[in-house]
Amino acid sequence: MFGLFKNRPAAAPEAAASAPAAPAAAPAKPAPLHGLMMDRPLLISDILKHAAANHAGAKIVSVRADGSRVRHTWPQIAARAAKLANALARRGVQQGERIATLAWNEHRHLEIYYGVSCMGAVMHTVNPRLFADQLVFILTDAADTHLFIDPTLLPALEAVADRLPPTLKAVVVMGEAGSVPGQGKLIGKVELLSQEALIADEPDSIDWPVFDERCASSLCYTSGTTGEPKGVLYSHRSTVLHALTTLQVDCFATSAADVLLPVVPMFHVNAWGIPYAAGMAGCSLVLPGPRLDPVSLYTLFEEEGVTGSAGVPTIWTALLQWLRANPEKRFTNPPRFTVGGTALPKPINEGFLKEYGVRIMHAWGMTETSPLGAVNVRKAENIDWDEDRWLDYSKKQGRPLFGIELKAVDAEGHEIAHDGVAFGELLVRGNWVAAQYFNRTGDDVFTDDGWFRTGDVVTIDALGVMEIVDRAKDVIKSGGEWISSIELENTIMGHPKVAMAAVIAMHHPKWDERPLLLVVPKPGSNPTEAEILAFYEGRIAKWWTPDAVEFVETLPMTATGKVWKAVLKKQYADRAPTTLAHAQTR
Amino acid sequence: MFGLFKNRPAAAPEAAASAPAAPAAAPAKPAPLHGLMMDRPLLISDILKHAAANHAGAKIVSVRADGSRVRHTWPQIAARAAKLANALARRGVQQGERIATLAWNEHRHLEIYYGVSCMGAVMHTVNPRLFADQLVFILTDAADTHLFIDPTLLPALEAVADRLPPTLKAVVVMGEAGSVPGQGKLIGKVELLSQEALIADEPDSIDWPVFDERCASSLCYTSGTTGEPKGVLYSHRSTVLHALTTLQVDCFATSAADVLLPVVPMFHVNAWGIPYAAGMAGCSLVLPGPRLDPVSLYTLFEEEGVTGSAGVPTIWTALLQWLRANPEKRFTNPPRFTVGGTALPKPINEGFLKEYGVRIMHAWGMTETSPLGAVNVRKAENIDWDEDRWLDYSKKQGRPLFGIELKAVDAEGHEIAHDGVAFGELLVRGNWVAAQYFNRTGDDVFTDDGWFRTGDVVTIDALGVMEIVDRAKDVIKSGGEWISSIELENTIMGHPKVAMAAVIAMHHPKWDERPLLLVVPKPGSNPTEAEILAFYEGRIAKWWTPDAVEFVETLPMTATGKVWKAVLKKQYADRAPTTLAHAQTR
Repeated sequence: MFGLFKNRPAAAPEAAASAPAAPAAAPAKPAPLHGLMMDRPLLISDILKHAAANHAGAKIVSVRADGSRVRHTWPQIAARAAKLANALARRGVQQGERIATLAWNEHRHLEIYYGVSCMGAVMHTVNPRLFADQLVFILTDAADTHLFIDPTLLPALEAVADRLPPTLKAVVVMGEAGSVPGQGKLIGKVELLSQEALIADEPDSIDWPVFDERCASSLCYTSGTTGEPKGVLYSHRSTVLHALTTLQVDCFATSAADVLLPVVPMFHVNAWGIPYAAGMAGCSLVLPGPRLDPVSLYTLFEEEGVTGSAGVPTIWTALLQWLRANPEKRFTNPPRFTVGGTALPKPINEGFLKEYGVRIMHAWGMTETSPLGAVNVRKAENIDWDEDRWLDYSKKQGRPLFGIELKAVDAEGHEIAHDGVAFGELLVRGNWVAAQYFNRTGDDVFTDDGWFRTGDVVTIDALGVMEIVDRAKDVIKSGGEWISSIELENTIMGHPKVAMAAVIAMHHPKWDERPLLLVVPKPGSNPTEAEILAFYEGRIAKWWTPDAVEFVETLPMTATGKVWKAVLKKQYADRAPTTLAHAQTR
Repeated sequence: MFGLFKNRPAAAPEAAASAPAAPAAAPAKPAPLHGLMMDRPLLISDILKHAAANHAGAKIVSVRADGSRVRHTWPQIAARAAKLANALARRGVQQGERIATLAWNEHRHLEIYYGVSCMGAVMHTVNPRLFADQLVFILTDAADTHLFIDPTLLPALEAVADRLPPTLKAVVVMGEAGSVPGQGKLIGKVELLSQEALIADEPDSIDWPVFDERCASSLCYTSGTTGEPKGVLYSHRSTVLHALTTLQVDCFATSAADVLLPVVPMFHVNAWGIPYAAGMAGCSLVLPGPRLDPVSLYTLFEEEGVTGSAGVPTIWTALLQWLRANPEKRFTNPPRFTVGGTALPKPINEGFLKEYGVRIMHAWGMTETSPLGAVNVRKAENIDWDEDRWLDYSKKQGRPLFGIELKAVDAEGHEIAHDGVAFGELLVRGNWVAAQYFNRTGDDVFTDDGWFRTGDVVTIDALGVMEIVDRAKDVIKSGGEWISSIELENTIMGHPKVAMAAVIAMHHPKWDERPLLLVVPKPGSNPTEAEILAFYEGRIAKWWTPDAVEFVETLPMTATGKVWKAVLKKQYADRAPTTLAHAQTR
């Protein structure tokens, strides 16, 4: 019944239409046989089109600076993104051109995200908490041509009005025409527009261009605590693969029925990809604007039916404290949280789970990893652990999902034992990991064999789960062994008289480096060095005990809210150990 | 503090290392700015490496033909896949070369899946239920060089021993050396090996080759009920993207803690991608072998802690009947099921949910769509529907996930209204949809503007959810309007005297086509045409009522278990309507 070899020479049945067989004379090197599937680039515009076409019922709630809320749908966001792209194209914006934002999490920011990347330009999110020098450096390095800015952030820009880069053609205030300042330091320095006036008369649809999925989509700078900020230039391919990965159960577990509230800012590694993941899943988004205090967040969680949220530990710590202080406040439907940035203290995780039924997942990543690098989610080996054992374990940063590879190497470059004890520097590679920085070459964090050196010192246990013990530049290298400054800090934070703490290395004549502990005492308390150090007894290896304590009133902080250890190290460069006793007990 | 423009000319700050700026003279066409992310191909070998490196705790349970079980881990599967690839390479297997299997769901099949694709050859799964002519056609068309076969399936191959294609170098029996037949029709026709002897002395590791992600990975033929079977040639890229998509919450929702039992055969569109998705998630797999009866499945579900399974409606229907007949059998932890292939009757879905706590998700796909094309999972618009409303609705085939686009067009090629009423042919395009068939060109199912015509007649409702009402070739075209043969069949299946039913078109002088209903009565029953047709009253539009009924003893079935309507249409080509009454009432 079947016409065998019909219309086809029997001698070459392997000749697929798109892949001619190699000549018979050279059988050892046939032309590669390609699959015969549709070949479509992975583009961010497809996310927007998917959401608009299939998920008109989801809501995009955006909180204004005054606390009021405005509501859109995915089709409306898509229409406004199209208007924006039409306006920028009319202004001559080209593929690859950088368009900056200084903005909170709100709907106009989302529209710029999609409008700019989908038209082929590069969405460059800038952290509004940067110092003036960093801001000028980043705008200049990126050579942004347009800067979209929230009205509340105009003062930060006015402070550097005399140093705006020559590439900058216009500043677009994210609001109605009336939001453009009529006076101030920007007047006469740069064209000033409003986003609403810019898009008002533009068509609300567009044929998004189709281009190579490896084209740049967005740009985000590292915080640069130890040198110049460095730009990570994401591609459409890396962004789409990253977002698709985060939808899975073992990551952000995002479904179309979700209502996600990203507390993590859209200027912080693209809000961990949530703006893209939400469009891909077709779920609802609640964009909280600048107010991230516990009352504002709790109100949004309850009133908007939020099912999932993501943010750094300080957000969740503050929320838990507020909840406990207001016992009538409960979650009607407990949302799930993702935490990243730094480790979440177990008591916070435990408190949310046992008192409020809220599960918190630890994730780890960096600007260079888009950011998802690892998640700590149960697997076959620990699915049956009880909650307490799991809570203890869940402080670890986790295991890689498909698409990411992790390894840790010692000072000689050998992979460390997976025993949860050995220290090594974490290296990562994968489909959404940076290969180099924008405008730079020769950075030695990119190895010759294709890995990115994270600068994190970690252990990896027998289950392949990674835990960060320190930054490589902060770990104390004492007599050839490593001491975790983070563990010393976390331990002493349990002392009732300690408000903040930082540990840095100081030079030691015999051991090379020994730990110096800086303590900000709690108001009204007056701890002594002896009682501080005594607290470590039985809690850490004795030879880890700091060799000196300094009591200080404050600690210098970076723009991303971390203790600025580079400044401390400079300040205490000549500090000598108070005693050699601890080191000598090794 | 930052060295502005250090080592960099201020005039060209936009010059990224990998993307030199266009000359100033031609600003309108700058070279595309590429992202600076790692550029790694999406390869199936990365799935296997990920599972082996990160998920050693998951189990791969495989049921032998005698019912006993053998257990492996992902590292062991990876080692055995490496041994297999080393053996095939030693035999001269080249990239792109097709390697066939005739096998059940078991661990050796899984090892061939990974070993063959990861080495760059093409995994060609063949349905053992094919008719002899189809089997010969497919092996010849694919030009397979090796055929791996389960010992239980040797008779099917022996039946065509005289017609094996000249390309076939060896038949490898999937078992120990003793499983190779010492006599029979294959002796002297082709080299006979055993899988265990083949791999015994090979190294258990390999550096999997890295190649273009668009290279072919596997090949699967459509069932060919209306003509020659047609091969769909998947690529590594399409396979990886498809598997990643299925992990998400709104699809198979696969986590590392899952224990998946694919009832759907590995020769049926790669078991819906589960062998790849399981490795990607790092979960456990239970491969049930040839025994798919309710007792065997239930025993595996309970004893192996199965959390998820997938199969066609007949599997779940039989399981529910058996459970009800054995009321002491309950699920300790109710697994979740995915159903596809054809629509699942609502009573089955409802029975599992209300009596056993088992949720069943409808998915839709075809060999040409890898197969995932749509899922019916709740979204913003229906998240608050009660269970009964949802059960009614969940018979629909669903909505596309990101990566797939669906549309339905009428006879003039215009998109139909999304009103849940209008009929149109379903077209699909996406990242894992076939662009053409293997060894063929000019198939008109692939449109000039890049869509695949599914041949399914569907409605799409206001939520964008699609429901299949018929196959395009089976829908009855009556007076310019379409009548769903499937709905006529499903309706009459509710008649107590009907065991099976099929509806085909017969020629009509006025309306072009009218429905002919073929009924297999239940044993011992003796229905009349009048009482059969009376059953339709009030259940369908009156003008849909069939114009004739034929009572038959059996219906012809295809190799995939569907009624073979092409045979029926030939058989009843001259059948005339019994009455014109129904048509005239329109």
